[in-house]
Amino acid sequence: MKNLINKINENLDKFLPVVYPEDIFKAMKYTLMLPGKRLRPIMCIETSRLLGGSEDDVMPSACAIEMLHVQSLIHDDLPCMDNDDFRRGKPSNHKVFGEANSVLAGDALLTMAPQIIIENSKNLSDTQIVKIIHEYTKFAGAYGLIAGQVVDIESEGGKLVKSAEKTLEFIHLNKTAVLFRLAVRIGAISANASEDELKTFDEFGKKFGLAFQIYDDIMDEISSFEELGKTIGKDKISGKLTYVSLYGLDNAKQKFNSLLDDCYDIIEKYNSLIFNEILDKLRNRINEA
Amino acid sequence: MKNLINKINENLDKFLPVVYPEDIFKAMKYTLMLPGKRLRPIMCIETSRLLGGSEDDVMPSACAIEMLHVQSLIHDDLPCMDNDDFRRGKPSNHKVFGEANSVLAGDALLTMAPQIIIENSKNLSDTQIVKIIHEYTKFAGAYGLIAGQVVDIESEGGKLVKSAEKTLEFIHLNKTAVLFRLAVRIGAISANASEDELKTFDEFGKKFGLAFQIYDDIMDEISSFEELGKTIGKDKISGKLTYVSLYGLDNAKQKFNSLLDDCYDIIEKYNSLIFNEILDKLRNRINEA
Repeated sequence: MKNLINKINENLDKFLPVVYPEDIFKAMKYTLMLPGKRLRPIMCIETSRLLGGSEDDVMPSACAIEMLHVQSLIHDDLPCMDNDDFRRGKPSNHKVFGEANSVLAGDALLTMAPQIIIENSKNLSDTQIVKIIHEYTKFAGAYGLIAGQVVDIESEGGKLVKSAEKTLEFIHLNKTAVLFRLAVRIGAISANASEDELKTFDEFGKKFGLAFQIYDDIMDEISSFEELGKTIGKDKISGKLTYVSLYGLDNAKQKFNSLLDDCYDIIEKYNSLIFNEILDKLRNRINEA
Repeated sequence: MKNLINKINENLDKFLPVVYPEDIFKAMKYTLMLPGKRLRPIMCIETSRLLGGSEDDVMPSACAIEMLHVQSLIHDDLPCMDNDDFRRGKPSNHKVFGEANSVLAGDALLTMAPQIIIENSKNLSDTQIVKIIHEYTKFAGAYGLIAGQVVDIESEGGKLVKSAEKTLEFIHLNKTAVLFRLAVRIGAISANASEDELKTFDEFGKKFGLAFQIYDDIMDEISSFEELGKTIGKDKISGKLTYVSLYGLDNAKQKFNSLLDDCYDIIEKYNSLIFNEILDKLRNRINEA
């Protein structure tokens, strides 16, 4: 896994040079290159590998997903959004580069992600590239990630259009699970997977994403700044709708474990060391808490 | 021209429904549907028509360019950027929907633009679609529009890496001319134009864009809120680097006219009523001032 993280970091670095006007490229690069778990690109690459795809072919798309993820973090941390001063243990983007540059750095990452795919996927057909970018736009935009963020922000103010349960499910599906679904779906498309295989991995990405958000909700309650690298306990203070606030810590742990069981089941037949390692790590961290 | 504007508005309306979570779609739609000149989509469609393309085939791409343009306006008006309370004569996006929703509405438009192209360009080949989205990402991102905005903002604070002349040229090329180049280039690609035709229209888009930004700089000096629908005289107050501030009003008018002459020359052989009407309107407005 460490090897793969290093490769992803090398490619992210390569795909994003620092040229004039340097301030914008530096701002994009700052948050992108902070040490991260690179979970989404890893899951994209591993899905492709399990389905017979080549690592080189999927690497640009995997890096694009990380760019998209980092874009959402940069904008999410802005004073007008979650107003968070720290990210991955360091001052957040706008604290270093100012709000204007952070808005623009996010915009630029959002645009660069598909550009990277188009310019570097030499062995993918135009049809595959169109499919991949279509997935990207569907899951990243107002029908996906951004819808999740909007409802998440609104829920803080107590403005709920649907019931709290339905609202929470919408947020978790759209704010978090979409990027994991996107990651495995793009991995599958890169490997020219069948519809059935795509569905299997989509289900895996969805369940994993839901489990991951509950993990995140639990960690916001029980973890430390040192461990997470971001402000802790904010959900509670801001009155955010989370799995823990709605169902309690014990139920959250139970739901997390049940979703993780499903994940193990879905991908059992692929014998993936990497997916098993990711699932084991999350499970151990929650169950030792 | 009025007919064409109506068609563009109908398609923009159709491509952007209002669904749950409605706040984000309403925010996107608010600025998008304010009455505008729709210059960029018109130039995209007219280029395609002159080169033998069909209006229906290019319409989704033309609308995508307007979405991109409106995205840049929404983010540009934010308090941390140009901090403008009015746009097209109405309260700007963040005054109506709040800053968080405006940041997200811009992000969502940026992502929806290529989605619209992919989902609605039934008669374009995947190769054409990849080419069009590649142009979109190159011109909209850190190598184009956003680079122009960053240098524009920095120039306000007097932070110049290059000379004032070179900086101004960079801003005008990247902040303004790119979108007109993008418009005509995408029009040409939709019509399967030759490399030579693409170059001709690219040159037209570039010269027109430079002329248009000088027009804008002049209008900020001599026009009124009623005419422009946005705050006037802001460039001067903020110490922004403009053609007028650097070379004076007379030189600005001279340069504008010379660029417009080039535009007339470049497209003379195409006998385009629409392009001639656009050029005439701009010229008359400046010369009667």
